[in-house]
Amino acid sequence: MEAFSDGVFAIAITLLVLEIQVPEGAEHDPLRALADLWPSYLAYLVSFATIGTVWFAHTVITEHIDHATSDFVRLNLLLLIVVSFIPFPTKLLGDFAGTDRSERVATTVYGVNLLLTSLILSLLWRYAVRERLVRPDTADQDVQMMTKRLTPGLTGYLIALRIGLVLPEVAVLIYLVIAVFILVPLRAILRRVT
Amino acid sequence: MEAFSDGVFAIAITLLVLEIQVPEGAEHDPLRALADLWPSYLAYLVSFATIGTVWFAHTVITEHIDHATSDFVRLNLLLLIVVSFIPFPTKLLGDFAGTDRSERVATTVYGVNLLLTSLILSLLWRYAVRERLVRPDTADQDVQMMTKRLTPGLTGYLIALRIGLVLPEVAVLIYLVIAVFILVPLRAILRRVT
Amino acid sequence: MEAFSDGVFAIAITLLVLEIQVPEGAEHDPLRALADLWPSYLAYLVSFATIGTVWFAHTVITEHIDHATSDFVRLNLLLLIVVSFIPFPTKLLGDFAGTDRSERVATTVYGVNLLLTSLILSLLWRYAVRERLVRPDTADQDVQMMTKRLTPGLTGYLIALRIGLVLPEVAVLIYLVIAVFILVPLRAILRRVT
Amino acid sequence: MEAFSDGVFAIAITLLVLEIQVPEGAEHDPLRALADLWPSYLAYLVSFATIGTVWFAHTVITEHIDHATSDFVRLNLLLLIVVSFIPFPTKLLGDFAGTDRSERVATTVYGVNLLLTSLILSLLWRYAVRERLVRPDTADQDVQMMTKRLTPGLTGYLIALRIGLVLPEVAVLIYLVIAVFILVPLRAILRRVT
Repeated sequence: MEAFSDGVFAIAITLLVLEIQVPEGAEHDPLRALADLWPSYLAYLVSFATIGTVWFAHTVITEHIDHATSDFVRLNLLLLIVVSFIPFPTKLLGDFAGTDRSERVATTVYGVNLLLTSLILSLLWRYAVRERLVRPDTADQDVQMMTKRLTPGLTGYLIALRIGLVLPEVAVLIYLVIAVFILVPLRAILRRVT
Repeated sequence: MEAFSDGVFAIAITLLVLEIQVPEGAEHDPLRALADLWPSYLAYLVSFATIGTVWFAHTVITEHIDHATSDFVRLNLLLLIVVSFIPFPTKLLGDFAGTDRSERVATTVYGVNLLLTSLILSLLWRYAVRERLVRPDTADQDVQMMTKRLTPGLTGYLIALRIGLVLPEVAVLIYLVIAVFILVPLRAILRRVT
Repeated sequence: MEAFSDGVFAIAITLLVLEIQVPEGAEHDPLRALADLWPSYLAYLVSFATIGTVWFAHTVITEHIDHATSDFVRLNLLLLIVVSFIPFPTKLLGDFAGTDRSERVATTVYGVNLLLTSLILSLLWRYAVRERLVRPDTADQDVQMMTKRLTPGLTGYLIALRIGLVLPEVAVLIYLVIAVFILVPLRAILRRVT
Repeated sequence: MEAFSDGVFAIAITLLVLEIQVPEGAEHDPLRALADLWPSYLAYLVSFATIGTVWFAHTVITEHIDHATSDFVRLNLLLLIVVSFIPFPTKLLGDFAGTDRSERVATTVYGVNLLLTSLILSLLWRYAVRERLVRPDTADQDVQMMTKRLTPGLTGYLIALRIGLVLPEVAVLIYLVIAVFILVPLRAILRRVT
C-alpha cells in the first residue's frame, strides 16, 4: 500500500506541469504571453509544495505505523482521491485568472481541496493513534507533536479560505506558507525517528 | 511483474483527473460551469474507487500466489490493458452528458469496460486456483471466499449494464456501490492473511 | 536503473489511452463517433502489446545480467527514448486515418519507431553477450534462443514496413502478431530461469 | 525519498512525448506536417537526455550519501520542482518555432530551466559534502571529480544561454552536448563505486 500511495503522489505532483497551457497566438508577443501565465506558475509552485508536504507527512505516518486495518486502508484511498484531484483546481487557478469573480471561485475550490486533503491526513493520523496502530516504541512526545502540527494546518486553510473570498491572490500565498510551515517541523520529527 | 502492475494501476488512477476538462468560456459563469461538470466528478469518483478496488484485489491475488506461468502473465497483461483503458470511457461519461442517447452510450461503454475488468480479474484468480499457483498454506475457506466475492461483482455489472440502457445515472451509482461492496470483504481476507 | 526503466515502461504504456480523443460534436451521433475511432483502439492495443513485450524482454535481459557498463546504460537510455516516443505515432495512427496517403505515412512512422525499439533491444542483448555481462550460470542454449528470438522480430518489422506502404491496416495487424509472437517464447525462457 | 524522486524523474521524462502535438489539418500534407515538427523532436531528445543525466547524477549523489538532513530533503524537493517543470519549456520550443523573436524567448526560458536544474543539483552535492553527509568510505578523488564535473555544466549553460539570444538552434544543440558531456564522466564514477 505504501509503494502504491508513493506512486500516486509522485504522479500527481508531476502531472501538475501539464496544466500550464500556453494560449493560442502566444508566439506573436511571447514575453507578454509567458508573463501573463504567472497565476499558473504560482499555482504549480503551491500545489507542488503542498503535495510534497502531504507526501512527506504520509511517509512519516506510515513509518510510525505497525499494521493497517480496513478502515485505515479506506481512509488512505480517500486521501489519494483528494490528492489526485489537486491538478484540477490547480488548472482552474490559471484558467480563471482575470475576472474577480472567477478568481474567487477558483481560489475557493482550490482551498476546499487543500482543506479536505489536510483534514483526511489529520483523520488518518488520529485514527492510527486511537486504534493503536502506531508502533509501541514511538515516543509520546512525537505522537503529540505530530497531532499538534496537523491542526494549525487545518485552521490555516480555513482562514485562507475566508480571505480568498476577498483577496484570492493573498489566499494562494497563504497556501504556500502553510505547505512550507508544516513541512519544516514534520521533518524534525522524522530526523529524530530515523 | 507485481511492481510493474502496481505502477500501471497507480498511473491509470492518477491520470483520471486529466479527463475532467473545463469548457471554454467557463470564466464568465464559473459557478455554473463547475456545477455542470458534476458527471465528470462522479465519473472520477467511480473510476477511482473501481481501479482502487481492482488494484487491491490484484494485490490480494498476487500475495496468495506462489509462482507464475506464461498464461498467468498473459492474463495479467490483458487485465492491465482493460484497466488502463478505463480513463477513456470515464472521459466519455463527462463529454456525453446532456442528451439521453449519448448518455446511454457512454454508460454502456463504461459498464462494458468495468465488466471486462471484473471478468479478467475473476479469470486470473480462477486460473491461479485451477493451476495450483496458490500458496499451499492458504486456507481453503479464503480461496472459496475470494472466488465467491468476485462473482457477485460480475452479476452486479451485468444488472447495472441493463439498467444503464434506461437510467444511465443510476447505473453509474451502482458501479460505485459495486466497487465499495467488493472492496470491503476483500480487505477482510487480507487482514486474516497478513 | 532497472526500477527507473520499469517506471518509464509502465508510464509509457498507461499514457497510451490519453492519445485516444473523441472528436468534437461526437455526442450527436455517439455510436458512429465511437465506431469511427477503431483505428485508435487498434493502435492502443498494438502499442500496449508491443511495449508490454519490450518491457518483458527487457526484464529477461536485466535478469540475466551480472553488472552494467557505461555503454550498456547509454544503450538502455536510448531504448527508453524510443519506447517513450511510441505514444506519438500511436496517436498519428488515429489522427491520420481516413485518407490513403496519410495512413501510409502514419503506419510507416509507427513501424520505424517499432523497428528502432526492436533494433536497440537486440543491440542491448548482443552487447551484453559480447561484453560478458551475462551471468556465468546462464545456459548457453538460453543465450542462443534469446538471440534467435529477437532476430525474426527485426525482419518481421522490415516486412511489415514494406507492406504498410500499400496496405497500412495489414501492417498494423502484423505489428500485433509480432508482439504476441515474440512474447510467447521469451516467457518460455523466463519460466526455465526462475 | 529516493524511490519518490526516481518516480518523479521517470514520469517527467515520459510525459515529454505528450508535448509533441500534431497541428490540425496535418492529414492533408502529412509528410510536411511531420517534418515541420522537427523542433519538437529535437526538444524531446534534448530534454530526455538532460532529465536522464540529472536522474543519473542524482542517483550517484544519493548512493554516496549516508543520511539526509531537513535542508537536504528541501533542496531535493526544489530540484524535483524544476525538473518536473522541464516539459513546459520543452513544449515552448516546439510551439514558438517559426518567428525569430519567439524562438529566442523559448530557448532562453528553456536554458534558464536547465541552468536552474544544474545549479540546484550542484548545490545539493556541495551541501552534502560540506555537511559531511557523504559516506566516509568515499574516495576523496571521487568527491572532487564529482564536484568538478558539475561545474562545467553550469558555465556551459551560461554560455549557451548567451548564444541562444542570437542563434537559438545552436543553443539547443549545446544543451544536448552538455547532457551527453556530463553523462559520460559521471558514469565513470559510478562504475568505480559499484
